[in-house]
Amino acid sequence: MSIDNIMQQAAIAFQQYRETKAEQKAVFLETIAANMEAAGAALIGQAAEETHLPQARLVSERARTTMQLRMFAALLREGSWVEATVDTADATVNPAKPDIRKMLIPLGPVVVFGASNFPFAYSTAGGDTASALAAGCAVVVKAHPAHLKTSQLVHKAIKDAIFSSGMPPHVFQHVEDGSFEAGESLVKHAATAAVGFTGSFAGGKALYDHAAARKNPIPVFAEMGSTNPIILLPDTLEKNAEELARQYIASVVLGMGQFCTNPGIVLGIESEGLSRFIAEAEKEIAAAIPQPMLHEGIYKAYHAKMEKALQQTGVNVVGHSSTEPGAGEAWPTLAETDGTAFLSNPLLHEEVFGPYAIIVRCTDLDQLQKVWRSLAGQLTTSLMGTEKDFTEHASMRALAESIAGRIIFNGVPTGVTVCNSMVHGGPFPATTDSRFTAVGINGIKRWVRPVCYQNCPQTLLPPALQNGNPLGIWRLVNNEWTR
Amino acid sequence: MSIDNIMQQAAIAFQQYRETKAEQKAVFLETIAANMEAAGAALIGQAAEETHLPQARLVSERARTTMQLRMFAALLREGSWVEATVDTADATVNPAKPDIRKMLIPLGPVVVFGASNFPFAYSTAGGDTASALAAGCAVVVKAHPAHLKTSQLVHKAIKDAIFSSGMPPHVFQHVEDGSFEAGESLVKHAATAAVGFTGSFAGGKALYDHAAARKNPIPVFAEMGSTNPIILLPDTLEKNAEELARQYIASVVLGMGQFCTNPGIVLGIESEGLSRFIAEAEKEIAAAIPQPMLHEGIYKAYHAKMEKALQQTGVNVVGHSSTEPGAGEAWPTLAETDGTAFLSNPLLHEEVFGPYAIIVRCTDLDQLQKVWRSLAGQLTTSLMGTEKDFTEHASMRALAESIAGRIIFNGVPTGVTVCNSMVHGGPFPATTDSRFTAVGINGIKRWVRPVCYQNCPQTLLPPALQNGNPLGIWRLVNNEWTR
Repeated sequence: MSIDNIMQQAAIAFQQYRETKAEQKAVFLETIAANMEAAGAALIGQAAEETHLPQARLVSERARTTMQLRMFAALLREGSWVEATVDTADATVNPAKPDIRKMLIPLGPVVVFGASNFPFAYSTAGGDTASALAAGCAVVVKAHPAHLKTSQLVHKAIKDAIFSSGMPPHVFQHVEDGSFEAGESLVKHAATAAVGFTGSFAGGKALYDHAAARKNPIPVFAEMGSTNPIILLPDTLEKNAEELARQYIASVVLGMGQFCTNPGIVLGIESEGLSRFIAEAEKEIAAAIPQPMLHEGIYKAYHAKMEKALQQTGVNVVGHSSTEPGAGEAWPTLAETDGTAFLSNPLLHEEVFGPYAIIVRCTDLDQLQKVWRSLAGQLTTSLMGTEKDFTEHASMRALAESIAGRIIFNGVPTGVTVCNSMVHGGPFPATTDSRFTAVGINGIKRWVRPVCYQNCPQTLLPPALQNGNPLGIWRLVNNEWTR
Repeated sequence: MSIDNIMQQAAIAFQQYRETKAEQKAVFLETIAANMEAAGAALIGQAAEETHLPQARLVSERARTTMQLRMFAALLREGSWVEATVDTADATVNPAKPDIRKMLIPLGPVVVFGASNFPFAYSTAGGDTASALAAGCAVVVKAHPAHLKTSQLVHKAIKDAIFSSGMPPHVFQHVEDGSFEAGESLVKHAATAAVGFTGSFAGGKALYDHAAARKNPIPVFAEMGSTNPIILLPDTLEKNAEELARQYIASVVLGMGQFCTNPGIVLGIESEGLSRFIAEAEKEIAAAIPQPMLHEGIYKAYHAKMEKALQQTGVNVVGHSSTEPGAGEAWPTLAETDGTAFLSNPLLHEEVFGPYAIIVRCTDLDQLQKVWRSLAGQLTTSLMGTEKDFTEHASMRALAESIAGRIIFNGVPTGVTVCNSMVHGGPFPATTDSRFTAVGINGIKRWVRPVCYQNCPQTLLPPALQNGNPLGIWRLVNNEWTR
């Protein structure tokens, strides 16, 4: 099947699917979740074989994925997400005001590129797919070649759900051609309305450029990772250096650092506390156990980028894991440098995907803020501080806001809670559009656009906009929120 | 002052301005409105001199502009637009859920390019500026060279408001260099966070391309006009041909067609009714009075594009205004062609900015839908029909949704009501991002992004997210809307 055929089928399926009722879409999403659960240990085993991730981690990742599907099902049933807005006619003003009603509608077929590090939650039936299907879009997933068989099993779960819940057969399609050319063709196809991507900067930026160069540019939400800087404020460093170091290194080596929220950079001011932090971090990194990385490509890239970083002027190794890594395993490594060396070398600002981190010793608060500000856009940034720290450095919240989509206080960035208030996004290059989030209910906003109806007969209006509010959803009616 | 200096000043002003309270920003916007009113007849006179628009039209356009400024002031005072979302901690789940709170914050300095055809409402203090200032962004306007002196007067109204309401002096800046290079430099500057544009396709697309080619791409909302197709359904054509023709031509020649919502294309099925429509439209266009166009460039482009359209195979002139146009005046013109000729010639699909329109005679409903579907993305599309028409052709709403941002029933597209439910946007090339609107309160969404705070101490949280809801705004708290 050619890419052209696939996208034409997606366009046809979209026209049917967008007209299905919210309840039908909700059942469809729930059935996908149930089918993924029913795929049982075989699905987990396949994912473990392909990704080298521990079974327990994969079990909880699947649970997160099915939870996301059910979260969007609940969002559809509740219904208010369409932002229905009604302004009734007013003949008494000049010029007379017509009746105008607005709601969100789906963009069209969405092409999704999953990530290798989350074979469930950011892949075939992950957040992009779940939110796009909830929005009413048809979805075409380009299967990640690093877990193709896992993706095929999830595809089967979705296909079965399509048939048992009576959805248009091509509302979801699975492209197994792993070439760059296939990806480019998908993004450039006339029927493609939007693109979701999770992965490397190089991959995401290439897709963004293809989309922007189209005759009719389309939106691309690419989440491209981050170094997630952690700021150690002076008072907490003095009081809690060892505890902070343990918490930090645990986050750096978690899952062999293969998270877009891995905290690869930590900033502190030269002090006795910072020395204790470094000393404790050295012990912790030595104690970390090498584990297999996701695949050969990531394994090679990690060690190449890590070694290159260590060769830079002013960069010193704090320590490595004291356990020799086996074939395909990552070697957890911690480096340090000073603020001046860091500021003068953009290479040190780049993400090293894996269990590597660099401590930046700053001369004072001014330099620390300068280093922080010099970093590119981030998914997250963390502020570690006592009450005293936060009172003295309250202005740092504004700086954090300018850098990241999520600001964490006294915590590490790994672990992304799926909830209404989560922002998994941030200024470029963390993502290609900081106005959206990949996680949480608002992820649906990437795939919809508003349309308004002027003087539309009641019988032709979508139910969300009809008088009497048959869906019982929250609406902004003549400037008042009502249900 | 160099572009670099201007943008650096905007960046500094932004950091101060974003911290000002909603009430202060609201007073600022209201003061701009009051100052524009206080500029009185002199401001209207200057605009009339530069744009050749009638004084009465300019008086009502200024009223719309000041209304928009006050609408955003009211939005700021009400406060719920920040989409505050609170999810409190839950230690009973595994893993434990942290406290997460989200709201919208401003993107940064916004560069605004105004339109020549709305010297107030889409220019210096127009919708883009008002919404960006309301969002908390600093604004840099590139003054439109076609009404530079008007823009200077509005700039003075804003400058006076900055000083009297104690805003950072550079929260608004006015660039009077009319060159393409200045525009390019503004879009490419590192401090620029977003771009708003209203004008031609060539201009908007060039800015979009500059923004996409930046090292860090930024959002561009460019509204680039439209042909706003009107569909005449069979029953209403039979019953109301003459009335429809009068309504249609009145909209085509209104303001000499110099609106992005000018309905340049009308589609009907060959019938006795369509012949009567054409006959009546011929009379109406003959009766239209030529009037001066906005400026020499638009005047020349109108006649060149109109003449080129008339030279195309299968295109016939229905009629011109029977009044000879004077120097700089538009010659209202109506053409007709058949569906086959239209489908085979993309040039006929292009906007001719001015009082020109083409009637497309379709063989049947299938061809009419094919022609409609062949059009590029539109700001609006209109469906003219009786109850019988809408019952028989209910599926045409879905087609209309795929084409346009605003769907009008039994009405013409000229006249954009400023209200919550208005969508002034649409699929490319009507705009560069169909997910946003240029008119109405939701215009503010173009200039903001979400940020979330994880386990943030109450004292550090923005008031919108603090416990107890000190601002009294609508918030989504643990999945329930509350105030």
